[in-house]
Amino acid sequence: MKLTKEQIKDIKEQQSQRNLTKRVTAPELEKVLYEAIPALDHGFIRVIDYMGDDSSIVQSARVSYGKGTKKVSTDSGLIKYLMRHWHSTPFEMCEIKYHVKLPIFIARQWIRHRTANVNEYSARYSILDKEFYLPDPQNLAAQSIANRQGRGDVLEGKQAIEVLQLLKNDAERTYDNYETMLNQRFDGSTIDENKKGLARELARMNLTLNTYTQWYWKTDLLNLMNFLRLRADHHAQFEIRIYADIMLDTLKRWVPITYDAFMDYRVGGTEVSAKGKIIIQKIIER
Amino acid sequence: MKLTKEQIKDIKEQQSQRNLTKRVTAPELEKVLYEAIPALDHGFIRVIDYMGDDSSIVQSARVSYGKGTKKVSTDSGLIKYLMRHWHSTPFEMCEIKYHVKLPIFIARQWIRHRTANVNEYSARYSILDKEFYLPDPQNLAAQSIANRQGRGDVLEGKQAIEVLQLLKNDAERTYDNYETMLNQRFDGSTIDENKKGLARELARMNLTLNTYTQWYWKTDLLNLMNFLRLRADHHAQFEIRIYADIMLDTLKRWVPITYDAFMDYRVGGTEVSAKGKIIIQKIIER
Amino acid sequence: MKLTKEQIKDIKEQQSQRNLTKRVTAPELEKVLYEAIPALDHGFIRVIDYMGDDSSIVQSARVSYGKGTKKVSTDSGLIKYLMRHWHSTPFEMCEIKYHVKLPIFIARQWIRHRTANVNEYSARYSILDKEFYLPDPQNLAAQSIANRQGRGDVLEGKQAIEVLQLLKNDAERTYDNYETMLNQRFDGSTIDENKKGLARELARMNLTLNTYTQWYWKTDLLNLMNFLRLRADHHAQFEIRIYADIMLDTLKRWVPITYDAFMDYRVGGTEVSAKGKIIIQKIIER
Amino acid sequence: MKLTKEQIKDIKEQQSQRNLTKRVTAPELEKVLYEAIPALDHGFIRVIDYMGDDSSIVQSARVSYGKGTKKVSTDSGLIKYLMRHWHSTPFEMCEIKYHVKLPIFIARQWIRHRTANVNEYSARYSILDKEFYLPDPQNLAAQSIANRQGRGDVLEGKQAIEVLQLLKNDAERTYDNYETMLNQRFDGSTIDENKKGLARELARMNLTLNTYTQWYWKTDLLNLMNFLRLRADHHAQFEIRIYADIMLDTLKRWVPITYDAFMDYRVGGTEVSAKGKIIIQKIIER
Repeated sequence: MKLTKEQIKDIKEQQSQRNLTKRVTAPELEKVLYEAIPALDHGFIRVIDYMGDDSSIVQSARVSYGKGTKKVSTDSGLIKYLMRHWHSTPFEMCEIKYHVKLPIFIARQWIRHRTANVNEYSARYSILDKEFYLPDPQNLAAQSIANRQGRGDVLEGKQAIEVLQLLKNDAERTYDNYETMLNQRFDGSTIDENKKGLARELARMNLTLNTYTQWYWKTDLLNLMNFLRLRADHHAQFEIRIYADIMLDTLKRWVPITYDAFMDYRVGGTEVSAKGKIIIQKIIER
Repeated sequence: MKLTKEQIKDIKEQQSQRNLTKRVTAPELEKVLYEAIPALDHGFIRVIDYMGDDSSIVQSARVSYGKGTKKVSTDSGLIKYLMRHWHSTPFEMCEIKYHVKLPIFIARQWIRHRTANVNEYSARYSILDKEFYLPDPQNLAAQSIANRQGRGDVLEGKQAIEVLQLLKNDAERTYDNYETMLNQRFDGSTIDENKKGLARELARMNLTLNTYTQWYWKTDLLNLMNFLRLRADHHAQFEIRIYADIMLDTLKRWVPITYDAFMDYRVGGTEVSAKGKIIIQKIIER
Repeated sequence: MKLTKEQIKDIKEQQSQRNLTKRVTAPELEKVLYEAIPALDHGFIRVIDYMGDDSSIVQSARVSYGKGTKKVSTDSGLIKYLMRHWHSTPFEMCEIKYHVKLPIFIARQWIRHRTANVNEYSARYSILDKEFYLPDPQNLAAQSIANRQGRGDVLEGKQAIEVLQLLKNDAERTYDNYETMLNQRFDGSTIDENKKGLARELARMNLTLNTYTQWYWKTDLLNLMNFLRLRADHHAQFEIRIYADIMLDTLKRWVPITYDAFMDYRVGGTEVSAKGKIIIQKIIER
Repeated sequence: MKLTKEQIKDIKEQQSQRNLTKRVTAPELEKVLYEAIPALDHGFIRVIDYMGDDSSIVQSARVSYGKGTKKVSTDSGLIKYLMRHWHSTPFEMCEIKYHVKLPIFIARQWIRHRTANVNEYSARYSILDKEFYLPDPQNLAAQSIANRQGRGDVLEGKQAIEVLQLLKNDAERTYDNYETMLNQRFDGSTIDENKKGLARELARMNLTLNTYTQWYWKTDLLNLMNFLRLRADHHAQFEIRIYADIMLDTLKRWVPITYDAFMDYRVGGTEVSAKGKIIIQKIIER
């Protein structure tokens, strides 16, 4: 991940803010606010804003006039209870907003989570950054035989080198031709003063799916957990899991009690079918 | 509106918070944070939390690394542009949460706005407050003849007095019988130690629709404006408009630039059909 | 449940339709289409329309050009797989629409399921039917001691009679006064030609929460199952479970393969937390 | 657009269905059901299923026991009224499902409409078709100078030929390398028996954004109109407008009365701000 001087300055400026507020705050999350946490080779995640903390869940579950309760132990008990019994609406009372830079093929997976607000960088309006995802060699997995949508062993030796070379060459060439068609370079400079450029909304179609895009993505705590449950799972594609793992850490900083309950009841938990229940009961009764 | 000593203390405690944050703040909104703003005879609206301000809209519309821009004039121009052209997603990047006390028949209108998060006081779990809405005499309107779902002239004299008496008597009697069935008074005390009480989830069915309920209600700025556009309109039922008008004021305190654009393009604006356009054009060309 | 002659005629007319279509049909569901299936004392559920069947789930999961597959066994295997692994989107490809008559306090629970389309009978526009829910004596449960939002033993003898009398009297009296305020009877006739009536949008506030309302309610198969999972559960309030049980039967008629998978993996299944998993594993390994 | 023999057979089979139903049908829409209507060079739209017709809107707006009304004139008046006054929920009572084949960069615009159900062809699971969008020379527009996200004049002569050549070469080369990395050709045959192939979920990142994908897309009538209002507009990108125009035609076949109201009040209509209203009034009063 490489930021321009101006981007670094913008981020520093945001981080230097010291505002007084009567709202609840999440001190551990404040520590990393606005920071560009690297993800994959050129991507990042930044927490831009948030609303509420663990006490907000308790407060709304009780529809109370003040804070949740005064005792952490009581709050914690209620949050665990809500999580265990799938009470969903109190968790919707907290909100978080991220700024994410990610490859387009991952953005296409991500956007399938519909209960979120999104503003994506517009390639109709601006030129996309000259950055594309190239996997680390140790992540260059072969197609799994057992699982039609999973990965198997890592490719090795010559084949791995070839694959990386193909990915790199194709991304660079298509990006160069993107610039040629636009008659403009990624830094905004014109290539040939005597020529028009192809409309940006058309030229972008020449880019490969590993090109990076970016967006602001905002969601409530419940839907964030729904996202993480699927995307931080070992069945998820490795590339989106990298982002989900970073977000899990921000979850922990933001709402530590909820995080614990989530790890116990959702991420680490499992389901048993009606038929499965009968089998387990028989085993236990032996 | 009457608050208990404990409720007043809870609110004061929240208002005395002074937290440092790196997040953007809305100073005018902070001034009224947590305050119970009276609505109708026993209701209120309290702003509990918020996320973002005018600059957040600009920031996400530009997918920028820092704040929106540095100049208020530029931000204002962009926000007007977004509003005029119905760009919706940047307005979803701000969020607000209210605590509202309101009569049940108004709550039933309100809840039809689905893109919001809600936690309502549970009458399965607790006893409802002994409070019900009685209109002011000047709001005791007759059925409109012209508009099947509107109001006409105000009822006068003896009929007005009778109506108010009926509303009051029926609400009080049904509430008394609610307590009798529960075998419990609204303050939690038991009526007859030798009796069981009817389940709360059943007893509540005896209450009238002007009984007050309360909820936490959270929505994004776009959907708040959709709500206000319908409910602060003169076609809206008077009782919900009272709430919408208070919320319009909180909107102004929160995002003043957006508020201005909203009043110009949505609330004060109008629509012209394809046929209407032709007529106006002919008149203008005369 | 009592229908007017005109209502019965309307329903018969709908049921006598014989239209040719190239769409898939669900023959077992067609048999009960439009029928008013009684629920509680005055309520009903009618299936008004539907879209898709089991094969539609398979078809969209495969993004196929034709039907799902040709073999029922293959379809069934895929549907079970999708259900077991919480693949949600293919189940969104079927849609169903109900016409429901139900007490207002149940409608208020029901509407909390937001991912649905609703048109409710408007009490601003029309007079509500003179019908209110009175529980059967065997459903007149006392408040549970163990569960703050549940039911305990059934009330008996004199107390049960008293409760029913209170519910009946209060509902009748408030409805009578509703008519008095409207200056109009439920059949539309005017009471006193020399008087105005109170606006309907106001008069309705005098009704008790067991008054019946009705609505058209449409949702997709996934969200129907989310609804049924919560509302056909034994923790759900008895009165909404009555509706959910009828809807479970329509689910079986509509998409029998999905119904079986739903009963096995959702309704009959259970969840085990991370800590619970460790305990079960220890027991099994003994 | 080219379909395989099997695909043509599948479609024919669907079209030959003659099922009896008591549901309402839309005869004009039935005529084109399942048909692959060509869009762009390799794309198509197929109507797969639908629910309801114009009468369903009236029926739910009235919460009636039978059909909407018996008279077309009454239905038409009500639908116009609902459209003019932005009553939205009755239009949600109809549903339609499309099978769409479209270039990925257009799919990315399309998916921003969140209130819809989607199942997309999975490139983690299967190999994508060897088809990519190449614009017709008359659609090869230069970037607009006036509008940062629009098109200007058409590119001409040598430059147009060059652009098309670049697009074609890059798409073909990246697709060839996609096959090489997969060690599998688009028809499923293996390239080199002694080699493993790269995981599909990785190899796809090498494809360009004009590669075709396909999905099942289902939405209600209200959200379909929201989509068409934006995407059949002359500000929309040409490539998505092609799809929107075809869908407008299916709208007309499906719900002709609603279509007329939509064209008058939404597509052909305009908005006037509060300030604009004052100006028009002054002109008219001259």
